[in-house]
Amino acid sequence: MIQTDILIIGAGPTGLFTVFEAGLLKLRCHLIDALPQPGGQCSEIYPKKPIYDIPAYPEILAGDLTNKLLEQIKQFEPGFTLGERADSIERQDDGTFIITTNKGTKHKAPVVAIAGGLGSFEPRKPLIENIAKFEDKGVEYMIKEPELYRDKDVVIAGGGDSALDWSIFLTDIAKSVTLIHRRNEFRGALDSVEKVQELKNLGKIHLITPAEVKGILGNDHVTGVVVEEKDNEPYILDTDHFIPLFGLAPKLGPIANWGLEIEKNAIKVNNALDYQTNIPGIYAIGDVNTYPGKLKLILCGFHEATLMCQSAYQRIHPDKKYVMKYTTVGGVEGFDGTKKEAPKAVVKAIE
Amino acid sequence: MIQTDILIIGAGPTGLFTVFEAGLLKLRCHLIDALPQPGGQCSEIYPKKPIYDIPAYPEILAGDLTNKLLEQIKQFEPGFTLGERADSIERQDDGTFIITTNKGTKHKAPVVAIAGGLGSFEPRKPLIENIAKFEDKGVEYMIKEPELYRDKDVVIAGGGDSALDWSIFLTDIAKSVTLIHRRNEFRGALDSVEKVQELKNLGKIHLITPAEVKGILGNDHVTGVVVEEKDNEPYILDTDHFIPLFGLAPKLGPIANWGLEIEKNAIKVNNALDYQTNIPGIYAIGDVNTYPGKLKLILCGFHEATLMCQSAYQRIHPDKKYVMKYTTVGGVEGFDGTKKEAPKAVVKAIE
Repeated sequence: MIQTDILIIGAGPTGLFTVFEAGLLKLRCHLIDALPQPGGQCSEIYPKKPIYDIPAYPEILAGDLTNKLLEQIKQFEPGFTLGERADSIERQDDGTFIITTNKGTKHKAPVVAIAGGLGSFEPRKPLIENIAKFEDKGVEYMIKEPELYRDKDVVIAGGGDSALDWSIFLTDIAKSVTLIHRRNEFRGALDSVEKVQELKNLGKIHLITPAEVKGILGNDHVTGVVVEEKDNEPYILDTDHFIPLFGLAPKLGPIANWGLEIEKNAIKVNNALDYQTNIPGIYAIGDVNTYPGKLKLILCGFHEATLMCQSAYQRIHPDKKYVMKYTTVGGVEGFDGTKKEAPKAVVKAIE
Repeated sequence: MIQTDILIIGAGPTGLFTVFEAGLLKLRCHLIDALPQPGGQCSEIYPKKPIYDIPAYPEILAGDLTNKLLEQIKQFEPGFTLGERADSIERQDDGTFIITTNKGTKHKAPVVAIAGGLGSFEPRKPLIENIAKFEDKGVEYMIKEPELYRDKDVVIAGGGDSALDWSIFLTDIAKSVTLIHRRNEFRGALDSVEKVQELKNLGKIHLITPAEVKGILGNDHVTGVVVEEKDNEPYILDTDHFIPLFGLAPKLGPIANWGLEIEKNAIKVNNALDYQTNIPGIYAIGDVNTYPGKLKLILCGFHEATLMCQSAYQRIHPDKKYVMKYTTVGGVEGFDGTKKEAPKAVVKAIE
């Protein structure tokens, strides 16, 4: 059982910054995220997109924002359960919560902060009758571990950046890479499109367009796919893996069944005080919450996380009064023994 | 008369970021600040101090924070009335407000955002009987225009960074620089203390410690000061200027008399909605406001400014419905004709 002070559901920007504000209050955090890496959609969906409305960053790439936040919270040694979805929550008699993931990992804490963004990102799946049977047996909707594909035949389907970029990446690892898309035109960064064109010309990517995968063959594992090309008879293409990359769509998911008050697919919170939900001890911050005037902006999540941590502190230490110290004055003391602080002024005679 | 959409009182970080969020809504802003430059206390009091709790900045100097914000809002062409204190406000019959500064400059807008921080910074003045008579006639509590001191005899009093740094700076401009402090020890950055020591050794700074200025001489303008050194008889030192740099202390000032609900020296606002004060059309954001759970942090000011701008938009355009666009999707269009936006994805066939 993983134990911590604040269990954070969602490792996007708001969840990550919560670790910092909690750390200033000497509270430890552990984050759970269904995606295989921290950063939420900033890392998974648009790492190379510039964001213009992070205060004091006239421009920052979403992936860089994640990296800066990870650097900022490093001192506070957050724990991570990644690639697992928070599925169920139980309130214990002592007021603490136990959260169990879809893989059975259990976490315990007196405070839960749901920073789940638009929900956990679920892949859009192609409509192929028997596809569920092959999930994790040759069909993957997300690439978590590229080494899985070493010296294998791989078929990727899709027409966007993910399909382009993974096709490029896997040419160095897989035995063969086939890219199938239902149009001739791809939609993505210019250099990705050009790189695929180049690798196709070199014979390193086998391109089939316009075409669709309509069936999957195999017993315990994928052995081939059925390809339908325009104006042709369907045919079988041997492959070890079929990776449809049709994008991710957020779903509030199991959290919707935790007894929280939900409105417009978001969790209602008390914005007049501390962003607590209708269940004391469970807070919701960032894009996942709603209240009058709510804006789904990263900078709002930062503020909500900060106020929430103060309330969490009172819940965890009902007997203590917290006196805020400015980081400019008190510095920042990490759990790892490091301390950041402003150079001290000297008091020195001039003779 | 200066006219704009949102009049912002206070050009600290919160006031500056308001320009950005207003700009996204195509609203123009004008800022009024008693200090001679934007940035509030970040620029005036601790420009070289690192701040550790700006989200995604593991460390940023307060002066750099100001510069980044100025860069971020440049596109939206904010107006500035600097070195003037917002003194009075009048509500017009049409619902707009007119704000007049202590120098008589008039500003008009339908919305006022008070982002006044801890108040306007007023210099701490030494207790010298006739000092008021010489204000702006040889006595200055802040250095606004160093050229004023070219080829003049200057006496600076104080023992902190301002006194040290301005003494150093003025050696290149003034005819003579005398630094008077009531102790032998100075309190400041090590390199500033060492630099003054070096300039003193070179005869470029005349140092008198421990000593105090106890009187000022002159008719229309300062001609000398009375210096009391320990164990000595008071004596007269001829000088053209006397600059006591004893620090600045914030005062809520005239704003306290605008009819706003005040609590603990701060302005009460509706944090459950839009940070509006008890007077419709006047908002208070950042350190100047108070509400249950309030934290006087820069990042909170950013959030408050953002929500406030949405409400201001509805006030200015009651007939329009604003649909928020993400900057990652819609980019940022400046009033100066510039546009920042993410590189567009191409749609391109691979052959």
